[in-house]
Amino acid sequence: MPDDQVDGRRRVVVECVRPQIDCGEFAIKRVVGESVVVEASVFADGHDQVACHLLYWCEYDKAVQRSPMEPIGNDRWRGEFPVLRVGRYEYTIEGWIDRFQTWRSDFAKRIAAGQDVHVDLLIGAQIIQDVAARAIGKDADLFRRSIVRLRDKDDQESGKNAALDLELLHAVQRYPERHLVTPYEKRLGVVVDREKARFSTWYEIFPRSCSPEPGRHGTLLDCAARLPYIASMGFDVVYLPPIHPIGHTFRKGRNNSISAQPDDVGSPWAIGSEQGGHTSVHPKLGTLEDFRKFISSAKEYGLEVALDIAFQCTPDHPYVKQHREWFRKRPDGTIQFAENPPKLYQDIFPLDFEAPEWHALWMELKEVFLFWIGQGVRIFRVDNPHTKPFLFWQWIIDGIKEQYPDVLFLAEAFTRPHVMYRLAKVGFSQSYTYFSWRNTKQELTDYFRELTQSEVREYFRPNLWPNTPDILPEFLQVGGRPAFMVRYILAATLGSSCGIYGPAFELCENTPYEPGSEEYLNSEKYELKHRDLDSPGSLRDFIARINRIRKHNPALQSDRNLRFHKTDNPSLICYSKATDDLSNIIIVIVNLDSFHNQTGWVDLDLDSLGLDATHAFQVHDLLGEGRYLWQGARNFVELIPESLPAHILHVRRWVRTETDFDYYL
Amino acid sequence: MPDDQVDGRRRVVVECVRPQIDCGEFAIKRVVGESVVVEASVFADGHDQVACHLLYWCEYDKAVQRSPMEPIGNDRWRGEFPVLRVGRYEYTIEGWIDRFQTWRSDFAKRIAAGQDVHVDLLIGAQIIQDVAARAIGKDADLFRRSIVRLRDKDDQESGKNAALDLELLHAVQRYPERHLVTPYEKRLGVVVDREKARFSTWYEIFPRSCSPEPGRHGTLLDCAARLPYIASMGFDVVYLPPIHPIGHTFRKGRNNSISAQPDDVGSPWAIGSEQGGHTSVHPKLGTLEDFRKFISSAKEYGLEVALDIAFQCTPDHPYVKQHREWFRKRPDGTIQFAENPPKLYQDIFPLDFEAPEWHALWMELKEVFLFWIGQGVRIFRVDNPHTKPFLFWQWIIDGIKEQYPDVLFLAEAFTRPHVMYRLAKVGFSQSYTYFSWRNTKQELTDYFRELTQSEVREYFRPNLWPNTPDILPEFLQVGGRPAFMVRYILAATLGSSCGIYGPAFELCENTPYEPGSEEYLNSEKYELKHRDLDSPGSLRDFIARINRIRKHNPALQSDRNLRFHKTDNPSLICYSKATDDLSNIIIVIVNLDSFHNQTGWVDLDLDSLGLDATHAFQVHDLLGEGRYLWQGARNFVELIPESLPAHILHVRRWVRTETDFDYYL
Repeated sequence: MPDDQVDGRRRVVVECVRPQIDCGEFAIKRVVGESVVVEASVFADGHDQVACHLLYWCEYDKAVQRSPMEPIGNDRWRGEFPVLRVGRYEYTIEGWIDRFQTWRSDFAKRIAAGQDVHVDLLIGAQIIQDVAARAIGKDADLFRRSIVRLRDKDDQESGKNAALDLELLHAVQRYPERHLVTPYEKRLGVVVDREKARFSTWYEIFPRSCSPEPGRHGTLLDCAARLPYIASMGFDVVYLPPIHPIGHTFRKGRNNSISAQPDDVGSPWAIGSEQGGHTSVHPKLGTLEDFRKFISSAKEYGLEVALDIAFQCTPDHPYVKQHREWFRKRPDGTIQFAENPPKLYQDIFPLDFEAPEWHALWMELKEVFLFWIGQGVRIFRVDNPHTKPFLFWQWIIDGIKEQYPDVLFLAEAFTRPHVMYRLAKVGFSQSYTYFSWRNTKQELTDYFRELTQSEVREYFRPNLWPNTPDILPEFLQVGGRPAFMVRYILAATLGSSCGIYGPAFELCENTPYEPGSEEYLNSEKYELKHRDLDSPGSLRDFIARINRIRKHNPALQSDRNLRFHKTDNPSLICYSKATDDLSNIIIVIVNLDSFHNQTGWVDLDLDSLGLDATHAFQVHDLLGEGRYLWQGARNFVELIPESLPAHILHVRRWVRTETDFDYYL
Repeated sequence: MPDDQVDGRRRVVVECVRPQIDCGEFAIKRVVGESVVVEASVFADGHDQVACHLLYWCEYDKAVQRSPMEPIGNDRWRGEFPVLRVGRYEYTIEGWIDRFQTWRSDFAKRIAAGQDVHVDLLIGAQIIQDVAARAIGKDADLFRRSIVRLRDKDDQESGKNAALDLELLHAVQRYPERHLVTPYEKRLGVVVDREKARFSTWYEIFPRSCSPEPGRHGTLLDCAARLPYIASMGFDVVYLPPIHPIGHTFRKGRNNSISAQPDDVGSPWAIGSEQGGHTSVHPKLGTLEDFRKFISSAKEYGLEVALDIAFQCTPDHPYVKQHREWFRKRPDGTIQFAENPPKLYQDIFPLDFEAPEWHALWMELKEVFLFWIGQGVRIFRVDNPHTKPFLFWQWIIDGIKEQYPDVLFLAEAFTRPHVMYRLAKVGFSQSYTYFSWRNTKQELTDYFRELTQSEVREYFRPNLWPNTPDILPEFLQVGGRPAFMVRYILAATLGSSCGIYGPAFELCENTPYEPGSEEYLNSEKYELKHRDLDSPGSLRDFIARINRIRKHNPALQSDRNLRFHKTDNPSLICYSKATDDLSNIIIVIVNLDSFHNQTGWVDLDLDSLGLDATHAFQVHDLLGEGRYLWQGARNFVELIPESLPAHILHVRRWVRTETDFDYYL
C-alpha cells in the first residue's frame, strides 16, 4: 500500500509546473502589478475530465486565493495571478477529476448518438445534488430545479435540456467538488519587488570628482550640485562608489601604482582607516548628515541613491584591530591579504567566511546594510559578491527583504555564468552582465535570447553597462563617439535596466591605460578628476533623448518581450519590444559598425508584432524623427554612424486609408 | 542565521544534477552492465578550486562507493559508475573546497612570477600535515618527507620541488579532505533491469489459432509446436494475449459484431466466466500445467513468455459475484459497463479504482501478478494501463520488483504523450509508442530524437510495433509487401526493442475491416485463424535475417546512440547507431517510399561515427550483401522497394592501402 497519508484513489497527476527554479528551491522574481503565469501538466488515467486551480497567497495575509486554470492543449494547463504588493508570494496547484464536466460531455455524446439516457439523467441528478449541498441562494435554487427536471421520468426532453444548460454548467463550476484532490507537493515562491527592480537607469559618479575647482577634493554637497545635470539626462538612480574612509597602508597611487604619493587619494574600494569603516563617511566627502541631505536632494530630482557595499578591509580598518578573528592568519602571524595569484593586493584584507566566528561576522555585515537603510538608502550595489559565500547572501538578502521588502540589491559579479546566475537565484534583484563584451550580432542575439527567453529571465534581471570604472571595452576605445552612441542605444533598448559610469561615458573618454587593457588611463579610481561637462562632443542630449524614449514607451521597460528579427547584413541588428497588449511596439535597428554606413533589409516577424502583412503601417523614428511607411516583413534601412547609428521605431499600426472616411461607408 | 543544521561556511554549491527525473521523484532506468554518467554544476565563491565525488550504492549492500568527478568546463563536472546488479541503485554528490589543489595551483603561479614563497611553503606544509593525519603506509611516509622539505628554510628549492611533485599531488588526492562538505540534498534512483529490458524482439501470437487442423480451437500445446518456427525467425519473447476463460454475456461476435453466434469464440480480452478469472487458463487452451510446459518449451528455444495482464472483467467474472464492491453501480442498481461515449462495451465491467474498498482491490490485483510469476512468467504486457491510476501502477511495480527485480512490464498505452511518459516514470520497463503512425522522414526524425536524445530516454524504453491486433496502419494497408519490409526494418533498427503481431505480419495480411479503419477484417480478436505459414510471400526469411543482424551487432541493441544523418531526398532516411567505443557502427538508409525506386545522396556526420574524411572506408550491406567503398560525408545510394528497400551498412573502418604492407615501412 502507498503511504497511509496518501489516498490511492487520487487519480490526478500535477507535474512539470513552470516557472520553477531548481525544483522550487529558489523564488522567481516579479515587480508589483505584474502577473505570474503558471503552466502545469495536469491529467488523470482514463477518459475523465480534470480540473485544476492555481492557489496563491501573499506572505502578509496568507489568505489562499484560487484561480481556475484553463487547458491549452496536450494536457498543459495555464493559470495566472496578479502580484499586487511588494513582498513574497507563494503558489501551488490542485487538480481533481471534474465529475460534472465528465458526465456532461459524455452525456452530450450520448444524446448526439441517440442513445437511451434515462439512467444517465439519474446519474447527473446525483452529481448535481452533491454540488447543491454546498450551494446557497440563487444557485441552490437552480440546482434544485435542475434535479427535479433530470429526475422527471415523464419528460425526458426537459431533463436533457436542463442537463446541458450552460447556466447550470457555470453554476456548478462555482462549487468545485475537489473530491480526491491532488495537491502539487511544492509551494513555489515569488519575490515581488517595486517597479524599479525591472526598469531603472543608473548613473555612476565619484563624488570626490565633483568639485567645481580643479584639484580640490569634491564633497557630497558638490555632488548634490551635480544632480540637476544627472536628472536632466533622464537617469533615476545615482550610484556612488564607497564613501567610506580610505586606508593608507599600502595605498595605491595613480594608475594603480604600488607606491602612493602623499597627496594620492587612494581607491574608494580600499575601505577603512582610523577614521572609521563601513558605516562611516570619508571626512573629505562630508558628514553623515551631508549624505542624508544628498539623498533628499536626489529625491527632489527624481533620483534614488544607490550605495556601494564592498565587504573588504584595508589593514587600517577598525575590524582588523577589533575582530582579528574575522581574518585569515598566515603561519608567520600576519593577516592574509587579498590575492589572485600571481596578483597581490596588499592593501586589502579579505574577510574570512570560513572563520569559526562566522556567525558574528554575518551579523555585523548585516548591520552595515541596516545602518545605511537607516540613513535612507534602499538600493545597494554589491561589490564582488562572488567572492563571498552564496549562503551568506541568501541569508542577508532574505533577512533584509523580510524587514524592508523595497530594498534592491545589484550584484557586481563579473565571473562565470553559473556563479552569476546563482547569485541571482539566492536573491540579488539585478545583476551586471557580459553585455560589455558582446558586440556582434550573433553574440548579442545569443546572449540576450538566453537572458530573456530562457528560464534565466525568471530570476536574473540584467543591468547593462557600456562602461564602468573597471571596464573600458575595446569597442569604445577604438570606435570614437559613434561607438558610445551605439553602445548606449543597445544598453538602453536591449535592457530595461542600464547604466553608465559618468561623466566618463557622456564625454566619450576612451584612452586605455595601455594597449590591450580595459583600465582607464589615469583612472578616477586612484585620483580626482576635473571635467568640462559642456564639451561640444558630449552625449548629454543624445542620452537624454534615449532615456526620454525609454520613459515614454512601456515596451522598453521590460525584458521578457525582447524578440530578434532577421537582417541580411551582419552589421545590422534588429529587435523589437512590445507590451503584452501590443499597445506599444518599438522596433530597434542598430548599425553595429561605428565606422561605415550600412544598408540592408530587415525581415520582421510580423506575427509577433501583431502586424498584418496586407496593411501598411507607419513607423516613427523616435531617435532620428523620420517617419516611414512600411508594409510587409521586408523593409530597407540605411544607418550612418555619426548622425543616425540606429532607428528606434515606434510602430503606429494604422495608416489612414479611404476606408477611414465617413463617406466611404 | 541559516538553519542551525547548516554550517554557513559551506561554500560549495552542487546544482543542476543530471540525469534527474522530475526533481528526483522518479528513478532513471539502466540495464546490468551499463554505466550511469552523472553531470552536475559544482562551484564555490571566489577563486578556490573545488572537488567533488559521485556517491552511489546498491540497495543490497548499501555500502556507499565514491567515484571522483572530473571537470568538463564551465563549472560542470562529470562522474560515472557501473550498475552491476539487477535491482535499485541510488546516487548523489558531495562537493568541497580542495584546499591542496587551490594552494598548489596558486603556488605554481607564484613560482612562475618569481615571488617570495617562504610563507606559502609553510602554508602548504600545514595542509599536507592535515592530510597526513588520515594517511597510512607509504603515503604517510611521503607526506612526512614532503613536510620536512617544505619547512626547510635552508633549502627552499627542495621545498618548491617537493610542493609541486606530481606524486605528492596524487597521494594527497587519495585522502580527500572534505572539510565543510556540501552534500547534494537529494538521493537519485536508478532501476537496474536485466538486459532484455533494453534489447528484446517480440512475437505476438494467439495460441487458439495454432491448431494444425482448420476450425479446431488451438491449445497451448499447439502453440508450443509453433515455437521452433518463431525461434527460427530470431525472436526472443513470445507474447500471448490473455489465456483466461472468456465471458459469454454480451460476447462479441466476428468482426466485433454485437451479437455473437453460438460458436463464436469471443475476445481473449473479455476475461472471466464461471470457469474462472485472471488466474485461470481457458479450458480450451489447456491447463495450468500445459502453460508451465509451454514456458519450458519456449525456454528451450531461447524464447521467454510474456503474458498479457488486462485488468477488466466480463459480467461473468468471479469478481462480479464475490466483490461487487469493486465495481461502480448505476442508479438503477446495475453495474456500470465500460464505455467511451458514445461507444459502449457492455461485455466489460471496468474495476472501480475509486471504490472505498480500493485497498483490497489493489492487493488482489497484485496477487494476479504474483500468481503468474509463480508459474514462471517474468514479462508482463499490461493492457490499457492508462485507464488505471498511476499510483496503483507505481505501488504494484515497486512492490513486485522489490521481490522479483527481474520482472519486466510493457505498457500497452496508446494515449496522450504525458500519460504515456508518466506510466514509464512510475515504473513500466518498456512502452508501446507512436511508431505505428510515424511514416515520413520528418515524423520519424522528430519522434525518435525525442525518444532517444531528450531526457525521455532516461525512463521511457520504446518497443516498436509495425502492427498489433488492434492496429493495421494505413501504410501497411496500401504499400503491399515492400511496406511490411520497410516497417520491420525501421522497427528493428530504430528501436532496440521491437515486435510484430504474427503470423499476420510475416504473411503481409493487410485488409482492413473497412476503408479508414485500422482494424483487421475478420480480426483474430474475435475468431480462430488458420494460415499457411509456407506461403511464398512470407517475410519469414527476411525477418530472420534482420533479427540476425540485430543479434550480431551490439550497436543495434541500444537506443541512446541513434543519430540521424542528412539526405537530399525526403523519401530516404538515414541514421546510424554505434557502440560507445565505436567498435561496431551500423548505418541504415531506408527508402520510405514502398512504390518507387529512390536515389539520392546521404550526408554523413563523420565525426559522430569517428570516421576520417581523408580515408576511404568500406561499408558492407548486411541486408543486400553489397560492399561499397565510401569516402567522405557524401555518398550516393539507390534503393528499390521490392528487392532492396534499405541498406543496413556495417562500417569497416580500415580499407587496406599500400601503407598496410610491410615493405612500405
